[in-house]
Amino acid sequence: MTDAARPPLRVAMIGHGFMGAAHSHAWRTAQRFFDLPRRIEMVAVAGRNPETLREAADRYGWSECDTDWRRVVERDDIDLVDVVTPGSAHMEVAVAALDAGKHVLCEKPLANTLAEAGAMAEAAAKARERGVFAMVGFTYRRVPAVRLARELVESGEIGRIRQTRAVYLQDWLSDENAPLTWRLDRSAAGSGALGDIGAHIVDAIQYVTGQELTGVSGMTRTFVTERPMLEESVGLSGRASESRRGPVTVDDAAVFFGTLSGGGLATFEATRMAPGRKNALRFEISGTTGALAFDLEDLNTLQVFSFADGNTAGFRRVLVTEPEHPYVAAWWPPGHMLGYEHGFTHQVRDLVAAIDAGEQPRPSFEEGLQVQRVLEAVERSAAADARWTPLT
Amino acid sequence: MTDAARPPLRVAMIGHGFMGAAHSHAWRTAQRFFDLPRRIEMVAVAGRNPETLREAADRYGWSECDTDWRRVVERDDIDLVDVVTPGSAHMEVAVAALDAGKHVLCEKPLANTLAEAGAMAEAAAKARERGVFAMVGFTYRRVPAVRLARELVESGEIGRIRQTRAVYLQDWLSDENAPLTWRLDRSAAGSGALGDIGAHIVDAIQYVTGQELTGVSGMTRTFVTERPMLEESVGLSGRASESRRGPVTVDDAAVFFGTLSGGGLATFEATRMAPGRKNALRFEISGTTGALAFDLEDLNTLQVFSFADGNTAGFRRVLVTEPEHPYVAAWWPPGHMLGYEHGFTHQVRDLVAAIDAGEQPRPSFEEGLQVQRVLEAVERSAAADARWTPLT
Amino acid sequence: MTDAARPPLRVAMIGHGFMGAAHSHAWRTAQRFFDLPRRIEMVAVAGRNPETLREAADRYGWSECDTDWRRVVERDDIDLVDVVTPGSAHMEVAVAALDAGKHVLCEKPLANTLAEAGAMAEAAAKARERGVFAMVGFTYRRVPAVRLARELVESGEIGRIRQTRAVYLQDWLSDENAPLTWRLDRSAAGSGALGDIGAHIVDAIQYVTGQELTGVSGMTRTFVTERPMLEESVGLSGRASESRRGPVTVDDAAVFFGTLSGGGLATFEATRMAPGRKNALRFEISGTTGALAFDLEDLNTLQVFSFADGNTAGFRRVLVTEPEHPYVAAWWPPGHMLGYEHGFTHQVRDLVAAIDAGEQPRPSFEEGLQVQRVLEAVERSAAADARWTPLT
Amino acid sequence: MTDAARPPLRVAMIGHGFMGAAHSHAWRTAQRFFDLPRRIEMVAVAGRNPETLREAADRYGWSECDTDWRRVVERDDIDLVDVVTPGSAHMEVAVAALDAGKHVLCEKPLANTLAEAGAMAEAAAKARERGVFAMVGFTYRRVPAVRLARELVESGEIGRIRQTRAVYLQDWLSDENAPLTWRLDRSAAGSGALGDIGAHIVDAIQYVTGQELTGVSGMTRTFVTERPMLEESVGLSGRASESRRGPVTVDDAAVFFGTLSGGGLATFEATRMAPGRKNALRFEISGTTGALAFDLEDLNTLQVFSFADGNTAGFRRVLVTEPEHPYVAAWWPPGHMLGYEHGFTHQVRDLVAAIDAGEQPRPSFEEGLQVQRVLEAVERSAAADARWTPLT
Repeated sequence: MTDAARPPLRVAMIGHGFMGAAHSHAWRTAQRFFDLPRRIEMVAVAGRNPETLREAADRYGWSECDTDWRRVVERDDIDLVDVVTPGSAHMEVAVAALDAGKHVLCEKPLANTLAEAGAMAEAAAKARERGVFAMVGFTYRRVPAVRLARELVESGEIGRIRQTRAVYLQDWLSDENAPLTWRLDRSAAGSGALGDIGAHIVDAIQYVTGQELTGVSGMTRTFVTERPMLEESVGLSGRASESRRGPVTVDDAAVFFGTLSGGGLATFEATRMAPGRKNALRFEISGTTGALAFDLEDLNTLQVFSFADGNTAGFRRVLVTEPEHPYVAAWWPPGHMLGYEHGFTHQVRDLVAAIDAGEQPRPSFEEGLQVQRVLEAVERSAAADARWTPLT
Repeated sequence: MTDAARPPLRVAMIGHGFMGAAHSHAWRTAQRFFDLPRRIEMVAVAGRNPETLREAADRYGWSECDTDWRRVVERDDIDLVDVVTPGSAHMEVAVAALDAGKHVLCEKPLANTLAEAGAMAEAAAKARERGVFAMVGFTYRRVPAVRLARELVESGEIGRIRQTRAVYLQDWLSDENAPLTWRLDRSAAGSGALGDIGAHIVDAIQYVTGQELTGVSGMTRTFVTERPMLEESVGLSGRASESRRGPVTVDDAAVFFGTLSGGGLATFEATRMAPGRKNALRFEISGTTGALAFDLEDLNTLQVFSFADGNTAGFRRVLVTEPEHPYVAAWWPPGHMLGYEHGFTHQVRDLVAAIDAGEQPRPSFEEGLQVQRVLEAVERSAAADARWTPLT
Repeated sequence: MTDAARPPLRVAMIGHGFMGAAHSHAWRTAQRFFDLPRRIEMVAVAGRNPETLREAADRYGWSECDTDWRRVVERDDIDLVDVVTPGSAHMEVAVAALDAGKHVLCEKPLANTLAEAGAMAEAAAKARERGVFAMVGFTYRRVPAVRLARELVESGEIGRIRQTRAVYLQDWLSDENAPLTWRLDRSAAGSGALGDIGAHIVDAIQYVTGQELTGVSGMTRTFVTERPMLEESVGLSGRASESRRGPVTVDDAAVFFGTLSGGGLATFEATRMAPGRKNALRFEISGTTGALAFDLEDLNTLQVFSFADGNTAGFRRVLVTEPEHPYVAAWWPPGHMLGYEHGFTHQVRDLVAAIDAGEQPRPSFEEGLQVQRVLEAVERSAAADARWTPLT
Repeated sequence: MTDAARPPLRVAMIGHGFMGAAHSHAWRTAQRFFDLPRRIEMVAVAGRNPETLREAADRYGWSECDTDWRRVVERDDIDLVDVVTPGSAHMEVAVAALDAGKHVLCEKPLANTLAEAGAMAEAAAKARERGVFAMVGFTYRRVPAVRLARELVESGEIGRIRQTRAVYLQDWLSDENAPLTWRLDRSAAGSGALGDIGAHIVDAIQYVTGQELTGVSGMTRTFVTERPMLEESVGLSGRASESRRGPVTVDDAAVFFGTLSGGGLATFEATRMAPGRKNALRFEISGTTGALAFDLEDLNTLQVFSFADGNTAGFRRVLVTEPEHPYVAAWWPPGHMLGYEHGFTHQVRDLVAAIDAGEQPRPSFEEGLQVQRVLEAVERSAAADARWTPLT
């Protein structure tokens, strides 16, 4: 289909930090590699600071910019609002957009509190009745190896699931003089490692197994309780003040285990203090007849074990770069690696396809809410000496 | 020192199963590679079945055999008793031997119940006053890479310890028709994965960190509650009956987390149902300035990370086969691998050296008891919905 | 610098196959992540087939298209010509573009014959006198880990280089019924594995070591000498005819060794028949004090060994995703992977920076010619029973 | 079978260096784990230096010792002579033993010169007519993973073999001040890396493929031509003199490629100057339908790739520790690692079984001679500018 023949999907993005860069790349790139049913138009970006906003618009390829997000959300020439602000603003923006009849893509975690997440899911449910859709951005579902894992579980390749183990290990807070960014401030971020990266492994396990957590027991820990204030942002961190210090109000690490709706046992750890692990989202799914293992630091690979391989059974290191693998045919020949941002591009592809087909894109806000419920249950458990906390 | 010049250490072994083969190998081999201060004499082995006992004596190189272990334990010409029976007999044999003035090496876990383990530690404490020593056989402490890990922690290489993660994954019970061996019977084995392999990771973490667990929260699970009876033993498993079935009375898997005496957070998982993992005792220790990682399926290697490596920092894959590494100088040139049984040979070396020096060999029965306390606390927690269970 | 403030660089691309997709992505993306001194304008793309050309222009984001490449090359509003045709057309297009005063980026290998490559280098040398630059596209130099390897060698991190070993292993021709694409036809492709992927490892070794090959001895082999004709192209391969077959006129595999200008020994293998290896460009550089190892199937990683690490020396698995690593600061936080196409984006960045600074971009056509000389020497050696063939 | 019931095999060992320790361990250990048809008696060891000889006899478990190897070889109460001297003495001892009617096990490489190796093969052929057998000690054939590789090739698992690649990388000579041991002296060692470790990869490839090399082209290199004299031996190296230096008369590294009798292409590299590689004997066998890969630094593992695994194909990391794998049933449960010396124990097992059955043990001296022919052809090629050298 030529560009001209496809009806447009007019997009606005609210926020333009690290996630804004990734989302913008995806909006620019998806139709270059995939046959999208809609022509993407990157109409406007909103943000508070007029200067950095203008620069971001130029840099990321948005036609216009506006410091008033409400105005943007209500424009008639916008079909979809992409929310990439800090979590504390998710609810307000997403609900306003849905109410204004715009489809919404919202970054994870859905919100900083369960109440906000619930309100968002409610708004999404209402909007759906009007053919307006909301989706939460757990992009790791769109890493081809993770999607392949889901497909293998679904097709029964590893039998019934008995256990899962998942960790998300980073090390950028190991240094006790790393500065106090907004991610370490509960009022902005909601929680620490738990909500930021723990959310990803909860979603990954629920997605790949096709099951929900039914109860948890957990602990959280803040190893460094005070840090130098941030003078200037650089990447996820920045330059630390030499004189001023402030309190860390979120967790540095969270560990928990739980039960899955299918009867299995699941373990989790999220930490920003594991030296040498930069972005190690790892999971292993043990079934009755086989197993799967994944590591985001080696993201083009899925490890697959099957007892059926007999006396030459062993974890197969599958390079998920063949044309028959999910999403891959659109890209490069076998063995040519994809990177972090491809997940975002795949997200745009799936979202646009669902909207065009009038179907609910996944994960829905309800699914995002379920992840929030798990995180909240972990926090309650942790606050009560690891007490078992059912998810009802 | 020539053979003749060294005073003898006269050894008897009680039991002769899988562990008997490993211990016998160590008694035969240690003085061939290490300069032991004593000349090992493998005097006698005891067991119930006269036929298999005779065969074991021949095969493993013991001069005599006896179906009455009490008689053996009381012989004047025995200096040390090596206990490799199932856990249910540990206390009786070990205490009798200590009372008879023999040094004792006892396989792990120390006993099937906390009460028995306590009695053993008490007997050991008394014996020590008479210069008689007891040691429990956590041989993985003697894998060179594990010992090196301990030394690196001790020397401050990775700073203060914040987190540890340890798993021991096997898959030999994944098949629900694997037969009901004594290891699945609570009365003989005490517990399942928890006591058999969970004990190893608890000891490994406490040893490498030099800290004790101060509280735990855990769950256990028996995924297959009934299995065919065992017709004939082969290796750790055997041939299953086609008609008779019986109940599994121990756990298949245990997951728990806890706190370390130094303030850190520790996670654990022991399972016999992780397809593709055969003997995967793995741990990772995260400190303030670096980290260590180990995998028993790759046992000649230690992974070492240090922030001090700057912009070429990354986990170093250290082949622990250099002459300056623990135990290695006695063996082969660099890059020549050691195997499972070397840990047992190193255990004999260390035990004999300590006895000769009149020093307490490590791990002592007290240390074995501490591991039992942890396992028992996990079981209590698991029985009470994962309730937090302090170790006082 | 805002978009408007930067002077434009107006680009045309000749050809639009697999490489066209990769180059287009880079032209679109580079200024979104890097601060380029010029504003990229993707003016026109040229190709033979009007239909696929139009579609490619739309898909890849080129404003105009033209079936006459000569017309495009001579347009006044074009500053740079990007040549991504099969190798047989490289010389004609590149020389015409240089003669017309356009900068040229030409895909590797520079040409199908040494004569053509020589003519191109000559044209480039003349153009340079007029401030017009030519560059050949060995993009793997721009993988951050490869660039870091070069920097480490240059700074003396591994001492004097004694040996290098490089392989480029693929498996897409293992199946003897894989069809006869243009890459298997000497008249279009020049050579087989040798020129296609062998060129990459020759360039990689010469680049990373900073040395040239001074002589080679080699063998080539065509294991499958006849294949079904191609009915329809898909990716690098396609659908095979069931009735018609044709001769393979290039090599399937090439092995060679040689000497480096610094006195070292270098080994090479390029093959399309190594089952399980999809895109395994691997090299290891052994110096007097350390070593480096790289694998394109794990492209965000560089392995670094240094004897200076003493008794915890081991290959460090360096994730080359830190802001201080080459090119990385423009992308994502640590541990967030880059993929295949990033090398192309980095190539655009470096090329535009060099042009803007009036400096020769690297690798120059002269460097491309040197790679051709090596390949040609290997072919001569292979044709003469592996005879030693000096590169004079 | 009880010890007493088995007829004895009375063994003498000539030499007692590093290889003597490994062989003695095997003679002591084989009947402890395997059901040997003969009872091993370690009768005598011979060596030049009476003091170290006595100590070695004690240490390694030989009943008697003698400084006159000829006297030992001719004793009536010896059935088998195990030759572990430096290569320069192999011929004299082995031929004398065979002439005296003793079975012979001789360390590799068979001899330092082709002439000597030929004489040995001739003596072995004559002895065989009298029911006396000779075997050369390429123990890596007995690593379970290598044996499994052979079995998989034989059963057609990977189809017809197209290519092999083998390297044997060590780094103990990287330091240019490492001392001049006998292994660096051509008169004692015959050659350097080529004969010492190159012999292993030539044997491994010929064994696993079941094919012979039919021609080679190669280069050798001595990077450090003068070294400090050795003051005292320690392990494979030792303490260097501070004043005296001497010439290195063997190669530090050898690279070569060749053709296999089945039409395949084979590459080889042997070096003692690859920093970070301690004992990296690695090979990969590429067939028409699959591939195998092995690394001696990870010796319990075989990597197996099969196109038949379809869209989850990937190298399977097979832990070769299952009871159905070669040799393994005699040892430990799955996942329990074997080490370097197990190959020697397996060698004793196979040798004793063959002798008892009146069959030629493998590899025969003829096979050892074939390896020598390859090494000699590589040396001739290297001396003639890498000229192609057929093996006729």
